Amino acid sequence: MKFIHTSDWHIGRQLHNQSLIDDQRHILVQILALAEEHEVDAVIIAGDIYDRSIPPANAVALLDDVVNRLVNEMKLPVIMIAGNHDGHERLGFASRQMSDSGLHIIGPLHKELLPITLKGKSGSAVFYGLPYADPATVRHVFDCEVSSHEQAMGVLLEQVHEHDSQGLPKVVIGHCFLDGGSESESERPLSIGGADKISPTLFTPFNYTALGHLHGPQYKGEEQVRYSGSILKYSFSEQHQKKSVTLVDFDSQGKAQIELLPLAAKRDVRIVEGELSALLEAGKTDPNRDDYLMVRLLDKHAILDAMGKLRSVYPNVLHLERTGLMSDNGQLEIRRDHIKKGELDMFTEFFSQVSGESMNEAQQQAMVQAIDELHKGEQSS
Amino acid sequence: MKFIHTSDWHIGRQLHNQSLIDDQRHILVQILALAEEHEVDAVIIAGDIYDRSIPPANAVALLDDVVNRLVNEMKLPVIMIAGNHDGHERLGFASRQMSDSGLHIIGPLHKELLPITLKGKSGSAVFYGLPYADPATVRHVFDCEVSSHEQAMGVLLEQVHEHDSQGLPKVVIGHCFLDGGSESESERPLSIGGADKISPTLFTPFNYTALGHLHGPQYKGEEQVRYSGSILKYSFSEQHQKKSVTLVDFDSQGKAQIELLPLAAKRDVRIVEGELSALLEAGKTDPNRDDYLMVRLLDKHAILDAMGKLRSVYPNVLHLERTGLMSDNGQLEIRRDHIKKGELDMFTEFFSQVSGESMNEAQQQAMVQAIDELHKGEQSS
Repeated sequence: MKFIHTSDWHIGRQLHNQSLIDDQRHILVQILALAEEHEVDAVIIAGDIYDRSIPPANAVALLDDVVNRLVNEMKLPVIMIAGNHDGHERLGFASRQMSDSGLHIIGPLHKELLPITLKGKSGSAVFYGLPYADPATVRHVFDCEVSSHEQAMGVLLEQVHEHDSQGLPKVVIGHCFLDGGSESESERPLSIGGADKISPTLFTPFNYTALGHLHGPQYKGEEQVRYSGSILKYSFSEQHQKKSVTLVDFDSQGKAQIELLPLAAKRDVRIVEGELSALLEAGKTDPNRDDYLMVRLLDKHAILDAMGKLRSVYPNVLHLERTGLMSDNGQLEIRRDHIKKGELDMFTEFFSQVSGESMNEAQQQAMVQAIDELHKGEQSS
Repeated sequence: MKFIHTSDWHIGRQLHNQSLIDDQRHILVQILALAEEHEVDAVIIAGDIYDRSIPPANAVALLDDVVNRLVNEMKLPVIMIAGNHDGHERLGFASRQMSDSGLHIIGPLHKELLPITLKGKSGSAVFYGLPYADPATVRHVFDCEVSSHEQAMGVLLEQVHEHDSQGLPKVVIGHCFLDGGSESESERPLSIGGADKISPTLFTPFNYTALGHLHGPQYKGEEQVRYSGSILKYSFSEQHQKKSVTLVDFDSQGKAQIELLPLAAKRDVRIVEGELSALLEAGKTDPNRDDYLMVRLLDKHAILDAMGKLRSVYPNVLHLERTGLMSDNGQLEIRRDHIKKGELDMFTEFFSQVSGESMNEAQQQAMVQAIDELHKGEQSS
């Protein structure tokens, strides 16, 4: 049994108001190609399929395309669970009518766990899809007393322990926050104050645990208790992460052999730093100037329309930080300085930036007069 | 081939801010029972499954329940098309993965029509599901020039004409406005100015046309070109309609035998008219006092908290019309009269209503003084 473990597709997500749907399509097509190349027997998606409980129509259409390719054309079974971003009822609609096709969607939490046995070219395995469920949901569905995420997961895992897999490897699919896991800035907290953390030891008894939620690929406790990570960098804090899907293959002892298959984004997400003139010069020959950028400008003087100038070279600058302006005295003092400066000094600086020249005597006098009149107007109104 | 034709479920709809989800569940369970009782071979739902393109989660859960009962438990094929209220992409998600189960959802319009041949206990038939599509959508999908709804439907029907049904009856499923059809207040217009009307003659060549959109059951042109109507009264304008589903059975010549199977709402939607005291008295013995009511009060004097008094007897009064107040001189003149009356007269009337007594001299003087002080306050502010 060889399968791809992926998660956190977040279809429909935006990065600083920029739609990523083309980037997502680009990556999902790669996953289809990897599934074909590695002749896998199944694809597992461990939650946060969509970014929002009500995904936009083009996100639904993209997932529909991908599922048609996997299930109908490539004849590969797909198991997906709802994550904390997904609308469980919406994602799970008509899932009983789909399962015979090989598409298994586990939306709302139900009391009966439905183990899914998949037959691979070299052996079978049993998959247990546990949708994201907070303690309140588990209390409601199982009519039991649990107050932490760890206790709640414990209740869900009881059935996995009890189920007789007939000696086949057991694969748990979950969406949760493992204690000690590395966060990024793009994950939405499951609860405030740490009650959302689950010990990795809960999962070590199983042959493999395919997790979603954390966006960096990582394992905790044992190598087979693992996050695949998201398919794209969904925040600048992830700039140094290598995104991938996880290829899992069980040996004859049911031990998981693990390989990370890298994903190549259409546009990288990265931070560049420098003075404007140097960045503009470098941008002319940057083969990746379409990347999504956060720019940290080191220039220490005010610059007119820095964003516009940068975007003429790097079209996808999404965020600009005036690091240089803030570094010397702290941004607050700069601002205070601006306020003390008065209108004439500020305009003089502005004028020289726009025109490239200093104001002459006549221009200065005209400006002084204009400012005076404005002040008089203010006092009489 | 015997099937039930229904449409315009509008799951998730509200009536004057009142959720109808329990009423909808009540009716849908009846449809399941009718399907069983009449041993039908299929259930056809001609659009407006949901009331909104983004249905609430409990609406999705209800449709999921109904579909599980029909398709998985009763083993009945279901064909549904998207209406003008439905979100085509959302409704149609994963439809290719469902169709083998017997659940056929036709969401977005595609260039290739997919005829669905269903085998019944006494003969088969071919069903052609045409989702609601305005002229712009048809122009886009078929790359053709059409400007009216009738021309657009003509393009869609070309493929139905061309398809060889091997002598089997042809059933068209559509969602549109037939010229001459009777409207209710609960249908959303498809376009402004009448360009949405389609001649019934477009459909007369087919053995049966199962239509959705108009909420009253009716046929146009020929008996087999038919609206089933909505499952519930979705406006007070429908108070005299009899809601039903349509039972269709083809005889050996492929002629449709038609029977209306009535639906019994959990709570009726009706208008009652009378003076408050009479209505309150009648309400005490009204076995249907849970109905959704619009009340037209004939009393000609102001009544304090008429809605509260009515709801103590009829809990589901949704709308109140003070017909009596408006009838004599028209509402506007009443209002003008109120304005002329002045505060003292109005308060005197109010006082006698609340207390059941007239104000005495001392009370009147206190009121005059209070009004005077208010007026002085107004002038000095």
